[in-house]
Amino acid sequence: MANKQKQAVVLLSGGVDSTTSLAIARDMGFICCALSFDYGQRHIYELKAASDIAATLGAVDHRVVKIDLRGFGGSALTDEIQVPKDRSYEAMTSEIPITYVPARNTIFLSFALAYAEVLSSADIFIGVNAVDYSGYPDCRPQYIEAFQTMANLATKMGVEGKRITIHTPLIELTKAQIIKRGIELGVDYSHTFSCYDPQPNAGTTKACGHCDSCLLRAEGFRQAGVEDRKKP
Amino acid sequence: MANKQKQAVVLLSGGVDSTTSLAIARDMGFICCALSFDYGQRHIYELKAASDIAATLGAVDHRVVKIDLRGFGGSALTDEIQVPKDRSYEAMTSEIPITYVPARNTIFLSFALAYAEVLSSADIFIGVNAVDYSGYPDCRPQYIEAFQTMANLATKMGVEGKRITIHTPLIELTKAQIIKRGIELGVDYSHTFSCYDPQPNAGTTKACGHCDSCLLRAEGFRQAGVEDRKKP
Repeated sequence: MANKQKQAVVLLSGGVDSTTSLAIARDMGFICCALSFDYGQRHIYELKAASDIAATLGAVDHRVVKIDLRGFGGSALTDEIQVPKDRSYEAMTSEIPITYVPARNTIFLSFALAYAEVLSSADIFIGVNAVDYSGYPDCRPQYIEAFQTMANLATKMGVEGKRITIHTPLIELTKAQIIKRGIELGVDYSHTFSCYDPQPNAGTTKACGHCDSCLLRAEGFRQAGVEDRKKP
Repeated sequence: MANKQKQAVVLLSGGVDSTTSLAIARDMGFICCALSFDYGQRHIYELKAASDIAATLGAVDHRVVKIDLRGFGGSALTDEIQVPKDRSYEAMTSEIPITYVPARNTIFLSFALAYAEVLSSADIFIGVNAVDYSGYPDCRPQYIEAFQTMANLATKMGVEGKRITIHTPLIELTKAQIIKRGIELGVDYSHTFSCYDPQPNAGTTKACGHCDSCLLRAEGFRQAGVEDRKKP
């Protein structure tokens, strides 16, 4: 019954994780409204990817909110700080990295909450992952639970008894498990873009192959036993 | 000892409440970094007020973050919906009003948290008030507590044990008490701007005198026994 389907807001960066999260939300039967951010990040190329993915995965709407985090500074993703390259898996996943953008997921989820409230949707999807991103405080389950509690107190919906849920379908999965799940759901990962430090390449862009995001992606595809058709 | 003073991020809209909150933060000994938002609101005139107030109350920094809430719709403050006029005090303060912007305080506090993290400041001030704005879910003490809990889980600072506090010095005060406290602290309220529906007036702007915000301001000054030098 199409008219019984519930709407969900799905945060979509254009990378492997958020793309898989969108495919899972759709598979769960949600009508998906995708939300991306143009936040002065170096990897603006992700937004093109997000737009392609929203279309191919059947999102009914895709909003891009422009916000400026550069004014605050504090991250290699928004400032002119060198993105670290060729780090060990341990270093990549255990420390709070220089690519950490202060309060980023909190800001993204807050906008998702505003959008959800306007849609009267009580479901928000975010592709956070506590396995590969254990160094990021705002990728942990206890953070997500606290945000959900706050969201239910923050909104007209919550006050009126409509329970808001922050869905994190990837939170306990390895990158390989995420990729396998996406492939089961028909995701074409060649549309996704992961690099923190893309290089210009004959009018298009090329992933650097050495930043944390490229390394985790390559290792994920290797462990999943799947060819990455968007190899750097 | 100037070098022992702690920095605080103070949300500043340019209205009576946030201005008083800034004066209180300064009085408590904080070095104040003010944060305002250009969010496509009708009352863009508030931003000029915020800038004047940050300067006159000695904020060491004043950032204005441009965000676009109009894309989501859903409020008389950001859309072309009629701002209600001449409502009773009971109606103004007990219902969730049409001027409610979805998740607004959550978005504002999230940016304040990002700014605080960059500054390594663990103190954020917001001039929310649960007396006159009991209809807004995100002005209640239980919402602020939940945001604070989330903020401590969201950030590098919180994880590293620096306890983040969301200060709400006005939350239990009436408008008259807020104005009296501000005057004790030397606030000149003629710099503030409160109207939800300002009217052009010979190259400047004039408060409408009939929206909830104008009515609450007028009643607050009346009860405080103070002349509002910026009367509509």
